[in-house]
Amino acid sequence: MSPCRYFPVWGPLEKFAPAFVAGVPSLVKPASQTAYLTARMIELIIESGLLPEGSIQFLAGGVGDLLDHVTPQDLVSFTGSASTARKLRAHPAIVRNAVRFNAEADSLNLSVLGPDATPDTAEFALYVKQLVTEMTVKAGQKCTAIRRAFVPAELVDDVIEATNARLAKVTVGNPTSDGVRMGALASLEQREEVRRSIKALVDSGSIVYGDPERVQVVDADAERGAFLSPVLLRADPDRAEPHQVEAFGPVSTVLPYTSVEHVVELAARGEGSLVGSVVTADTGFARDVVLGIAPWHGRVLVLNDDDAKESTGHGSPLPQLVHGGPGRAGGGEEMGGIRGVLHHMQRTAIQGTPAVLSAVTGRWVPGAPRHEGVHPFRKSLAELKIGDTVVAGPRTVTRADIDHFAEFTGDTFYAHTDETAAAANPFFGGIVAHGYLIVSFAAGLFVSPEPGPVLANYGLENLRFVTPVKPGDELTVTLTAKQISPRENADYGEVRWDADVTNATGESVAKYDVLTLVAKTA
Amino acid sequence: MSPCRYFPVWGPLEKFAPAFVAGVPSLVKPASQTAYLTARMIELIIESGLLPEGSIQFLAGGVGDLLDHVTPQDLVSFTGSASTARKLRAHPAIVRNAVRFNAEADSLNLSVLGPDATPDTAEFALYVKQLVTEMTVKAGQKCTAIRRAFVPAELVDDVIEATNARLAKVTVGNPTSDGVRMGALASLEQREEVRRSIKALVDSGSIVYGDPERVQVVDADAERGAFLSPVLLRADPDRAEPHQVEAFGPVSTVLPYTSVEHVVELAARGEGSLVGSVVTADTGFARDVVLGIAPWHGRVLVLNDDDAKESTGHGSPLPQLVHGGPGRAGGGEEMGGIRGVLHHMQRTAIQGTPAVLSAVTGRWVPGAPRHEGVHPFRKSLAELKIGDTVVAGPRTVTRADIDHFAEFTGDTFYAHTDETAAAANPFFGGIVAHGYLIVSFAAGLFVSPEPGPVLANYGLENLRFVTPVKPGDELTVTLTAKQISPRENADYGEVRWDADVTNATGESVAKYDVLTLVAKTA
Repeated sequence: MSPCRYFPVWGPLEKFAPAFVAGVPSLVKPASQTAYLTARMIELIIESGLLPEGSIQFLAGGVGDLLDHVTPQDLVSFTGSASTARKLRAHPAIVRNAVRFNAEADSLNLSVLGPDATPDTAEFALYVKQLVTEMTVKAGQKCTAIRRAFVPAELVDDVIEATNARLAKVTVGNPTSDGVRMGALASLEQREEVRRSIKALVDSGSIVYGDPERVQVVDADAERGAFLSPVLLRADPDRAEPHQVEAFGPVSTVLPYTSVEHVVELAARGEGSLVGSVVTADTGFARDVVLGIAPWHGRVLVLNDDDAKESTGHGSPLPQLVHGGPGRAGGGEEMGGIRGVLHHMQRTAIQGTPAVLSAVTGRWVPGAPRHEGVHPFRKSLAELKIGDTVVAGPRTVTRADIDHFAEFTGDTFYAHTDETAAAANPFFGGIVAHGYLIVSFAAGLFVSPEPGPVLANYGLENLRFVTPVKPGDELTVTLTAKQISPRENADYGEVRWDADVTNATGESVAKYDVLTLVAKTA
Repeated sequence: MSPCRYFPVWGPLEKFAPAFVAGVPSLVKPASQTAYLTARMIELIIESGLLPEGSIQFLAGGVGDLLDHVTPQDLVSFTGSASTARKLRAHPAIVRNAVRFNAEADSLNLSVLGPDATPDTAEFALYVKQLVTEMTVKAGQKCTAIRRAFVPAELVDDVIEATNARLAKVTVGNPTSDGVRMGALASLEQREEVRRSIKALVDSGSIVYGDPERVQVVDADAERGAFLSPVLLRADPDRAEPHQVEAFGPVSTVLPYTSVEHVVELAARGEGSLVGSVVTADTGFARDVVLGIAPWHGRVLVLNDDDAKESTGHGSPLPQLVHGGPGRAGGGEEMGGIRGVLHHMQRTAIQGTPAVLSAVTGRWVPGAPRHEGVHPFRKSLAELKIGDTVVAGPRTVTRADIDHFAEFTGDTFYAHTDETAAAANPFFGGIVAHGYLIVSFAAGLFVSPEPGPVLANYGLENLRFVTPVKPGDELTVTLTAKQISPRENADYGEVRWDADVTNATGESVAKYDVLTLVAKTA
């Protein structure tokens, strides 16, 4: 895994965590400019002794012929420039072995201001504040930074005025000095590169804040340090440059738009981005823009006065959320909860008898062998095995039971109480028992009441009432241990049971999973 | 999408179906040798008028600069040789635009005979029959065909003898003639290629059935037609050739192995396969081999006397199952149920307030606005909106209710009936109400009993009892329409409701989804 130079700590950890959970060792190869920080972090991790030996490894500088040796069981994960991503993606060994390759490249991320967000609104202030944050945090050297600021045409002047006012308060200089809000770029070459990009952008518009050649700095030398003023541009959205030229520094371009359709069409010209944000209190506008731009984005944030306090903001990937975007953004996907872990694993379809599938997965599946004997509620987690079963019943459901249940619970729905109305129901054709009555009676049949290893029923899953139960029907329940999951650091674990309630003809009337907590020892 | 020459009908359809379900048009570019069959199928599809115009398109022959124009919104799906897959994967436009690329390449698929499957067993016969089928169907020109037949060392002679006996019955010749079991290869060049591969394989072992240069044919010219005898080899598994050289014709190699660990290690030398099969009646052996070889396979079939009748066999991909394999098999994934559809779509993480998430997804999420008013059970599917809510209660749960429910249902679990024992339970600390009582009382509160648009409660999902209910607790239930799914071709649809049962302090005691069928009109 190769994190980018701008996130020498978060970058490798974001990639390492899902790999580690998947049981896969990681080799971290950071960008050389900031490798010393990554190295120190890895040292601290290794010193902690928390991780198994070899689970995280480190390599700085040139990698020699390392990539020639990747195998189909490897995954190469890269964050950085689109051009390096391309080189790696087409590397002969990666291509030859169909090695999983994940790229996360910087892109022309956007932020859209809603037409409702006039200068007097909270959303207007949020938009401007977020834009300035994204321009200036890490001096705008973030793959998620806002490069295209889409603003309703009639609000462009207001947005520029408000943004300029905030930018004017961004003191540039030595970050250790009081009051300094933005430091230098990563290198002098980087500054030259950003200046070149700004020149290209100026072709399509004009600079409305800052001077790329001049900046006032505090406690530093503006020329010897790679300092750069924040630069805000205003451009014609029909020109190609604002959608294609990325100035990887404290630079953003304000672009006017005239309608939802217009901004959706303009968004697509970026050809794939990591993240977009929509700042609006208008839910309908948010919906339309989100649905329009989602095909080109890995993540979309809708920001308004209601979620601003909780929001981690435009620029922050989160472990639960997919990070990565299509096209220019690299076409990759990292994180996204358990998906991030599964990216490191092989998905294999297994075909076989239920007995084989149960043996392979460690989870009982319908049709696999059942074992009757001691009531499984009398068995501790250590004794219980998948397939352990109790069959209980039959119990006849009478009309009196249904009447009484309706009266006792208050559930007097006509299908349980009114013969004529129930007969007209398209599914029942007469009085039927309550579903809740069926599962209650089933519990009455399968439960083993005395204190023992089963501590609690904490839920049900996937309950389906598949055949109506009529007065006079006899119910039998078959309860089978399906999945046994001991908890670490607890003296109990979860047991999932397969419950199948059948009638006298053997048809299932209800199927569900019963979730219980069971003690590890008796 | 470019299906391989050997599946001119199934190939494009397998790729088209998930794309169509995803709403994505397909351009089919078949291999030239068998394009006329694909063309005829597409003609029939278009003539049927069943599909929207443009949803399936056809291009035969050279594609010109077509691939230079693929965009980040495209997916290129290829089935064929590993070398063409490599060329496509590294195509500049595919690399530049991070175009989704799926390859499904032929690979050195294996079949493992279990040590239990001695010649007197059903599994032995199944193994031999399947091996001959895979060698001879389509003259062995299948990307899923068995190339490596792993056999316990002590059974190798028996397997070869039985396989040879079956192969001797495979009549080669003009497929329209009676009794012919195997036709010609796709072309004379293909035959030359297979002969070359057999020569390479002979270096590591010997031919035990067939002569690559000579075959008796029925009603055809053995030289002018690309006819080839089935060829069975026996080889040293420690040589590289059997794991690397694929003879894409009626050719397979028997390889001895000595233990589970040995066959797992040998399997990996194929460097990635589409499918493997394990033929055994020993569930433990099946489990160990499946878990050992799964990281190198897209699909694994365990075949025995119990599932043989139902099994579609080693060579058949199924819509529900992943098709594709790591490494040499192309590193791709097709089908696999809904996954096959999602491969054509962009996964985008959306952040926003519950109101925004509800508006974007069309599904009510907790925290989104609720609307009280007319009881939502009085509203037809046409009138109901997500967020429509009824709040009902409170109802006090008394000790007498709990006693009565225990007696009536038979669920006399100690936590509901025995104060002393319940007090010792680590979660309850005293008598608690049955979970089934809580949901039954909740239904009694939220139900609107008269006949109306709500037709049936067909299930519950995700039920969790999150706080114990003690005698004297007051229950209130909030039921909110969460998802509304009209059915096509029916006068009703599904409504999923969010149910939240709370106590007097407002804590949730039970949370679940109620699933109902609701009429489209009142």
